Amino acid sequence: MKLASLKRGGRDGTLIVVNRDLTQFVTVTEVAATLQQAIDEWPNAAPRLNAISEALNQGQAGDSQPLDYTTLASPFPRAYEFVDGSAYLPHVERVRRARGAEVPESFYQDPLMYQATSAGFLGPRDSVPVSSEEYGIDFEAEVVVVTDDVPMAVSTARAADHIQLVGLINDVSLRNLIPAELAKGFGFVHSKPRSALSPVLVTPNELGDAWRDTVLHLPLHSWLNGERFGQPDAGVDMQFNFAQLVAHAARTRPLTAGTIVGSGTIANQDESLGASCLAERRMLEIIAGGKPQTPFMSFGDSVRIEMLDAEGASIFGAIEQVIESYGN
Amino acid sequence: MKLASLKRGGRDGTLIVVNRDLTQFVTVTEVAATLQQAIDEWPNAAPRLNAISEALNQGQAGDSQPLDYTTLASPFPRAYEFVDGSAYLPHVERVRRARGAEVPESFYQDPLMYQATSAGFLGPRDSVPVSSEEYGIDFEAEVVVVTDDVPMAVSTARAADHIQLVGLINDVSLRNLIPAELAKGFGFVHSKPRSALSPVLVTPNELGDAWRDTVLHLPLHSWLNGERFGQPDAGVDMQFNFAQLVAHAARTRPLTAGTIVGSGTIANQDESLGASCLAERRMLEIIAGGKPQTPFMSFGDSVRIEMLDAEGASIFGAIEQVIESYGN
Repeated sequence: MKLASLKRGGRDGTLIVVNRDLTQFVTVTEVAATLQQAIDEWPNAAPRLNAISEALNQGQAGDSQPLDYTTLASPFPRAYEFVDGSAYLPHVERVRRARGAEVPESFYQDPLMYQATSAGFLGPRDSVPVSSEEYGIDFEAEVVVVTDDVPMAVSTARAADHIQLVGLINDVSLRNLIPAELAKGFGFVHSKPRSALSPVLVTPNELGDAWRDTVLHLPLHSWLNGERFGQPDAGVDMQFNFAQLVAHAARTRPLTAGTIVGSGTIANQDESLGASCLAERRMLEIIAGGKPQTPFMSFGDSVRIEMLDAEGASIFGAIEQVIESYGN
Repeated sequence: MKLASLKRGGRDGTLIVVNRDLTQFVTVTEVAATLQQAIDEWPNAAPRLNAISEALNQGQAGDSQPLDYTTLASPFPRAYEFVDGSAYLPHVERVRRARGAEVPESFYQDPLMYQATSAGFLGPRDSVPVSSEEYGIDFEAEVVVVTDDVPMAVSTARAADHIQLVGLINDVSLRNLIPAELAKGFGFVHSKPRSALSPVLVTPNELGDAWRDTVLHLPLHSWLNGERFGQPDAGVDMQFNFAQLVAHAARTRPLTAGTIVGSGTIANQDESLGASCLAERRMLEIIAGGKPQTPFMSFGDSVRIEMLDAEGASIFGAIEQVIESYGN
């Protein structure tokens, strides 16, 4: 099934079930008012939401309405935890290569992961407010999963069973703030502001054969100002699958229902597939020609992120965002 | 007023108003079921909760019940954001001095802050589950504030107006996991597991003259296994006040109502006042004698953290926790 949240309602929006074709939806207040409420009571809510989803897909939900992406909040307008991995090593290798550094051997066994802000997610069609173009505005196209309650120190095998939803994210990054911030040693605060989840999140069974071994085996497409930017395959070069990332996140703490775990920027060894963020294209330009050619984003620039199934249909709907000048 | 949450109710507990003496409470379901709901609607909820608090303090709340700390959940059993500063530079200076490093000049103008987990807070009398004593188990006694909604890029002057609640935290730290984790460059995940807030959070007006210029001017007492450990003054050597920390946190993102902002471990230049974490005592031992004498915490060890007002009465109640072996 496919789940989303309308902007109407309170701070957490209003949970809806969306049909497979992303054209119709029904409200499901009788099951759960919000997606957080549903994931809090997943064993009870999921079968009931599934039944509604099946009726909707069979055209038997009499009260369905046409879906308008601009009315959607983030599926989780706010969440309790977002931990973002960096599972595609070609991304890490290129960052390091551009500055002449090696990738430590441990990075191939021990996932990179950071604690990200989860207190607010932008809607999938909301603009991205930024105070200054000098911050080096970038997007990052990633895959995310959402867990139910995960016990502390869970095994990787058991962690897989806790992945209940899959989606995409535009992990907004302020590149020019990163070096000074990471140099302080405590990770990202200013350089990773609010991100945007895809219009809908889907259950893994909705992905069919494309979801194998807790990896999503499909290309992730991104466009910058309407031009195709990259389509690396999320199923290729993922050094750690989502079960490993969830187990890593839960090593010293339980994960609360509704925890969002990110894959990190999708990147393949095959450079012809393009990148999933400007920083990586700029690194390849540096490696090739000594300096970057592509600027970071300016106010008014747009990004589009989408994943298509084997038949070319959108799975999660497209994230489409414009960079907006804030407070200037 | 003083607010807390009972363990009963759902995942967010049940909001209660506690009297000034911390002996009686009343439920306030008619105003808000949970503390998150109250802070979400603070302009509406605060005056109504205040009226209940005044009646309770005057012995005019007929339905009050005796307070039992063991029935308390964390005031926020889960929260959307916790960003923890490191505003007491003597702490930072000692950490660096112990390893022969300088404190960068920028640390005196630009706050250190990290994105911490907020998805679950331990109750103030809950044990702290840890898988291994080899992790180097430590406590950190800190002051925290809670904000309402804070606009992105707020000024320091305006940030002060958004501080609605004040409390304490035991920021549990796994010291032996920190060096390897910080060396990866992305901040803390494993080494900062779930923390515990104080039994109650209080409005700044409850602190009287001790709350000046968004700094809490009182000693913070900690005890290890029943022995006095330290009582540095939270009003001394705080390089950045809470308004500055809130403004720092909000530089590139708005803060959602219920955001928790931590001071960092309380530490004074005056070493005779002791420390607020084991790491710092161990650093002083290293500086004095070349190696640490005090071990990190073992299973069964206890910590107590409390702040007293000018009359010697507990303001927030005491955090009292025992380290518990998990999964062994």
